[in-house]
Amino acid sequence: MTTATASVHNGQYSGFGRLCGVQLVTLDDIKAAADRIRDVAVHTPLVPATGWSDPERPLWIKPENLQPVGAFKIRGAYNTLARLDEPVRARGVVAYSSGNHAQAVAYAAAAYGVPAHIVMPEETPTIKVDATRARGAEVILCGAGQREIVAAEVVERTGAVLVPPFDHPDVIAGQGTVGLEIARDLPDVQNVLVPVSGGGLASGIGTAIRALCPDARVYGVEPELAGDTTEGLRLGHRVDWSIEDRNRTIADGLRSQPSDLTFAHLRKVVDGMITATEEEIRDAVRVLAFQAHLVAEPSGATAFAAYLRKAVPPGRTVVVLSGGNVDRHALLEILNG
Amino acid sequence: MTTATASVHNGQYSGFGRLCGVQLVTLDDIKAAADRIRDVAVHTPLVPATGWSDPERPLWIKPENLQPVGAFKIRGAYNTLARLDEPVRARGVVAYSSGNHAQAVAYAAAAYGVPAHIVMPEETPTIKVDATRARGAEVILCGAGQREIVAAEVVERTGAVLVPPFDHPDVIAGQGTVGLEIARDLPDVQNVLVPVSGGGLASGIGTAIRALCPDARVYGVEPELAGDTTEGLRLGHRVDWSIEDRNRTIADGLRSQPSDLTFAHLRKVVDGMITATEEEIRDAVRVLAFQAHLVAEPSGATAFAAYLRKAVPPGRTVVVLSGGNVDRHALLEILNG
Repeated sequence: MTTATASVHNGQYSGFGRLCGVQLVTLDDIKAAADRIRDVAVHTPLVPATGWSDPERPLWIKPENLQPVGAFKIRGAYNTLARLDEPVRARGVVAYSSGNHAQAVAYAAAAYGVPAHIVMPEETPTIKVDATRARGAEVILCGAGQREIVAAEVVERTGAVLVPPFDHPDVIAGQGTVGLEIARDLPDVQNVLVPVSGGGLASGIGTAIRALCPDARVYGVEPELAGDTTEGLRLGHRVDWSIEDRNRTIADGLRSQPSDLTFAHLRKVVDGMITATEEEIRDAVRVLAFQAHLVAEPSGATAFAAYLRKAVPPGRTVVVLSGGNVDRHALLEILNG
Repeated sequence: MTTATASVHNGQYSGFGRLCGVQLVTLDDIKAAADRIRDVAVHTPLVPATGWSDPERPLWIKPENLQPVGAFKIRGAYNTLARLDEPVRARGVVAYSSGNHAQAVAYAAAAYGVPAHIVMPEETPTIKVDATRARGAEVILCGAGQREIVAAEVVERTGAVLVPPFDHPDVIAGQGTVGLEIARDLPDVQNVLVPVSGGGLASGIGTAIRALCPDARVYGVEPELAGDTTEGLRLGHRVDWSIEDRNRTIADGLRSQPSDLTFAHLRKVVDGMITATEEEIRDAVRVLAFQAHLVAEPSGATAFAAYLRKAVPPGRTVVVLSGGNVDRHALLEILNG
C-alpha cells in the first residue's frame, strides 16, 4: 500500500484563484458550469452502500457511469462547447481521443448541431470508431503518436475549435460540477475519493469541495502502474513516466499525466494521493457489480479500490465511480476472475 | 408476443378513490409517503439511454436497484413503518419473505430501532438469511407453506405488526413515490413500463402517473410463465395460477399474484399488460449490464424486456428497473450466456 499525503495546503499559496501565475478555476466558474449543463448531464445521486460497506467509513457512490456517454466527461465537454461564442462553435469542434472524451465531445457537438471531428489512432477498436460515427462525428484515423499533429491540421483546415480532454479551465469547471453535487447532497462529507489521470476531474471536484466543505479531505487515486501524479505531488513538481510504463495498467482511462494547469490545481486542492494495484482494481470492479449493482470500467473503479483497502481515515466517504465503458469481453473476464 | 390491453378506463368507475367498495390509494397518500421516505430512499435519477436505444422510443431507466436493500421495496416498507403510531411500532414488525421485501422491512425496522421478525422458508439460501440477520433482524425459519401461520404466531406472541409485501395501502402509497418522481422529472413521459407481481408497485406508480400525466400510458409487464395478471385483467377478474406454474420463471420476484386491493388498482390505472419470455428477460439483464452499466436481477429487468421488443407505441418511455439483488453465480450464468 502506498499512501502519500501531499504536503501542500491552502495557506502556502497566495489564494485568490492564482497559483504560480496560473489562473485557477473558482467555485463561481463551477456554479456557472452547473447552470449550463443542467439539461444535458444527469445529477447523479449519492448511492448509499448499506449492509456491506465498512461501518467506520459509511459509503456513498457517485455513479457517473450513468451519464450520457457513460462517463463524467460529458460535463466538461458540454460546458466547453456552451462557453464558445455561437459563430465560433458553428465551425465545429475537434478532439483527439479513443476514449470517453471523444464520445463526450461528439455527444455535445450533436446536442448543439455542430460538426465534430474526432482524431483516433488506427488501432482503435472498430466498435469505438462506429460508436463515435453513430453520434454523427467524423472520425479521422491516424498513425501512432500523430494524433496531436493531425488534430492541429483539422483545426487549420476547418477552423474548428480543439476541445482538450483536461487541460482547459472550462473542462475543469465542468468536471467540478460533480463536487458541487456532492457538497449539496452530503454537506458533512469527510472523505472524497477521485480517480486521477490528466487531473481535470480531481481539480474540479477538489476546488468545489475545498470551497464548500472545508473540513473534508479530497484524495486522488491512481493505478500503481501509472502513479506519476502520486510521485509528482510528493516531489512538488510534475514528473514524466514513459507511456510504455503507464500503458501497463488495465485502467486505460488513467494513463494520462497532468498538465501545468491541472497540476497546479491538484497541489492546492488534493489532500493526498493513493495508488491501487491491478488486482485491487479488478476486485473493485467485481464488488461494484455484485454488491452495488453498478458496472464500472477499471478506471471508473479505481477510486473504489482505495476505499476497499481502507486507505482513508474513518468518516463519511464519497467514492466517484467515473465511468462504465468497458468492452463486454473485458468485463466478463474480470467478473469471472 | 402477448399484448393485452385491459378494457378499463377511469370513466366506468365511480372515482373518488373507491372501486367496488375498495378504498383506493390517492395522489395525496403518495405525496405524504414521499415526505416520509425522503431521508431514507434515494430519489433515483432517470438515466437517459443515449446512442443505443430505439430512436422512436427515447428511453430513460429508473434504477431502483440503487436503493438501500437494492430494490424499490424500501419505499413501501419504510412508509408503512412511518405510519404506525410510535407505541405500536415499538413492539416491532413481522414480515414473511425470502426476498427483497424481507430486507426492506429489516432495514426500515433498524432505521427506527425497533425489532424485526422475518419468517423465511427453511430452503432460503444461507447468504440471504445471513444478510437479513446482519441488518439486525431475527430470522425464523419455517417449513414449506407454513410462513403465514408462523408469522401469525409471531404476531400473537410479540404484539408486533405484520407488514405485508403489497396488500396494504401504505405499501402501495410508498411504491407510488416512484411514479411521483417520474412525473416530476419527465412530465411529458408517454409510456411507463413497470413489472407486476403482487401489483403493489404498478398500483402505486399507475395512480401517480394517471393523476399527474394523464396522457401517459402505464404498462404492466410479467413473465409469460407467471402471466396471471395479464389473463386476469383480460377476463376482468382475478385468476389463480398454481405456484408450481409461477415458479417456472427465472424472475423469482415476480411469482406472486395480486390481492383484491392491488387488482382493483391495476384495473383502474394500468392501460395494458405485456408478457416477456424467459430468454427475453435474460437478454434484458445482459443489455442493461453491457449498455446501461446497471446490474438488474431478472425480475428487475423484465419491464425492460418489453421495451427491447418494442411492445409499446412510439414515444418517450420510462422503464422501471425494480431491483438488482441477484446471486453472483446466477448473474454470471446470464451474462456469459
